[in-house]
Amino acid sequence: MKTIRWKDGVVITVDQTLLPHRLVHLKLRTPNQIAKAIKNMKIRGAPLLGAAAALALAQTVYKSKAKSRASLLKELQKTAVLIKTTRPTAVNLFNSVDAVLKMAEEHPCSLKELRRYLIKKCLELIAEDAKVNRALSLHGAELIDTGDTVLTHCNAGELATVEYGTALGVIAAAHRRGKNIRVIATETRPLLQGARLTAYELKRKRIPFALITDNMVGYLMAQGIIDKVLVGADRILMSGHVINKIGTYTIAVLAKEHGIPFYVAAPTTTIDSENSVEEVVIEERNPKEVLELGGLRIAPKGIKTFNPAFDITPPHLVSALITEKGVIEVKPPKIRALLDASDGR
Amino acid sequence: MKTIRWKDGVVITVDQTLLPHRLVHLKLRTPNQIAKAIKNMKIRGAPLLGAAAALALAQTVYKSKAKSRASLLKELQKTAVLIKTTRPTAVNLFNSVDAVLKMAEEHPCSLKELRRYLIKKCLELIAEDAKVNRALSLHGAELIDTGDTVLTHCNAGELATVEYGTALGVIAAAHRRGKNIRVIATETRPLLQGARLTAYELKRKRIPFALITDNMVGYLMAQGIIDKVLVGADRILMSGHVINKIGTYTIAVLAKEHGIPFYVAAPTTTIDSENSVEEVVIEERNPKEVLELGGLRIAPKGIKTFNPAFDITPPHLVSALITEKGVIEVKPPKIRALLDASDGR
Repeated sequence: MKTIRWKDGVVITVDQTLLPHRLVHLKLRTPNQIAKAIKNMKIRGAPLLGAAAALALAQTVYKSKAKSRASLLKELQKTAVLIKTTRPTAVNLFNSVDAVLKMAEEHPCSLKELRRYLIKKCLELIAEDAKVNRALSLHGAELIDTGDTVLTHCNAGELATVEYGTALGVIAAAHRRGKNIRVIATETRPLLQGARLTAYELKRKRIPFALITDNMVGYLMAQGIIDKVLVGADRILMSGHVINKIGTYTIAVLAKEHGIPFYVAAPTTTIDSENSVEEVVIEERNPKEVLELGGLRIAPKGIKTFNPAFDITPPHLVSALITEKGVIEVKPPKIRALLDASDGR
Repeated sequence: MKTIRWKDGVVITVDQTLLPHRLVHLKLRTPNQIAKAIKNMKIRGAPLLGAAAALALAQTVYKSKAKSRASLLKELQKTAVLIKTTRPTAVNLFNSVDAVLKMAEEHPCSLKELRRYLIKKCLELIAEDAKVNRALSLHGAELIDTGDTVLTHCNAGELATVEYGTALGVIAAAHRRGKNIRVIATETRPLLQGARLTAYELKRKRIPFALITDNMVGYLMAQGIIDKVLVGADRILMSGHVINKIGTYTIAVLAKEHGIPFYVAAPTTTIDSENSVEEVVIEERNPKEVLELGGLRIAPKGIKTFNPAFDITPPHLVSALITEKGVIEVKPPKIRALLDASDGR
């Protein structure tokens, strides 16, 4: 299943806020519509955000009436700002926009050729996401033993990517190899990506699983029920810090306490080669997400909340990083080497 | 606020499933109605369950048409079984029932006098719960420093007891002393006792607080926001193991990792002097509680869940136990000494 597609300037994707009840496809016709869908989390998942960002730029080129390279570049800059200010944490958004802008600036050619070139490159970026997820899924599946029960958090599946998924991609690959695995999926409050999206994907793929509330992880680990933890990432720093959905750090601490391997699966496009942990902005979202559920108020009125969308897991809690270029220890020189390496495909 | 009252054979209590939206009082006229309210969690909270159990026995005596001591004792035995089979984990239910039965069996007197005696004793048990919670609240408040931010889980407040509360009783006592504290309350999925009941109580008492989802605890601790953890208990074993609402163990592991004191506040009626950790039954509740929220389905149909209502925190993760008889280290000889000591009031 492809989560996002390009058709004659229109971006077609799944409205992730309506799943699992309804599978509705959005037709987004402008970068503004894409930016709004990102803010409202109709589009979410770090690799998918990268893809949507590239397609917003492709759309800008596609619809542009610019008469010169300079004015096309100006329009692209405007879309870049629009997209980069939607959500602050997932680095794929920034990496994707910067990659396209760099290509635009560095490709010496006529306006007409530049337009054709940029749209082609944006579509290649999208196709690339599917390829790297497939590759990392196969690498990661090597780490899963027959009969394992694997815990995953939030949704790092097809729906978080263009295709295949990251953490759920690994799980699906292990399942396809007949490893007889079972999954424990956390519901992932406040927006329930686990209960809504991961449960939807696992059910569709007929992978045996059980859904739990986020606060059951410690108990299940203490009972010896969980063999491995496998999560995605929204940003990985050169220091090895992993920024991912709120709750990930709690699970990592619990995994260490119980001696359970904790794996992060993400394409190298999720690596942030520039910022330190102090520079990362953790998005604080609307209190309504905590106070309500599906429009239903669950707490008294007029009270305060915290609603950080992500947390930060330090490298000593991460057993290994699974990427399209292979599985590595989460150490700065290894991450550096990974970025410098070709992917060998 | 008294959460449960006795009036001419009728047990009047708050329907805790309707808070915070509606404050509705139930009038329970038979032990069967009480048992049903316990099963449906209209009545919940370990000390309150103990109180409700005693009142179910008082009701049995009050309504009895028994012509002999033996037949009254038989009726009490029947109610005891009814109440003991409602929920398996909170020990106050069992301790309370056993205490009343013992009094009935050991008090040599006429049938008429026995009836009067038992009802009086049951009402004394209820009054006693309020007294011990007040006493433990004052002991516990000594542990709270001015300006502390205290995390609590589930609801261990007035609503979980006859009056005052345990963990929230300590918090309220520290607040009344002008210690300028702030509370972080976890929502406590699946049944949201934190979002519904703790938030309701804290708001009423004007104690500053913020509500979070259960998976935010690790992040807030890593940010240095939390100074202390304070929770109640559904059962404390002689070994020092604390059985409490699901999620407590996860918080205890996180507190240890971050060097944050983790306190358990509970009356000595919550101590189980008989069973070992292997003998404790952790109640597994209806999957609907995980799959739905306020009648709203949040996950795909036909999927599996785990739904343990409690977890087990080992003594090495508990900094101290706060009881009506004082604050103790969670070590078997100290717990034994506590049970043997008079309460010094």
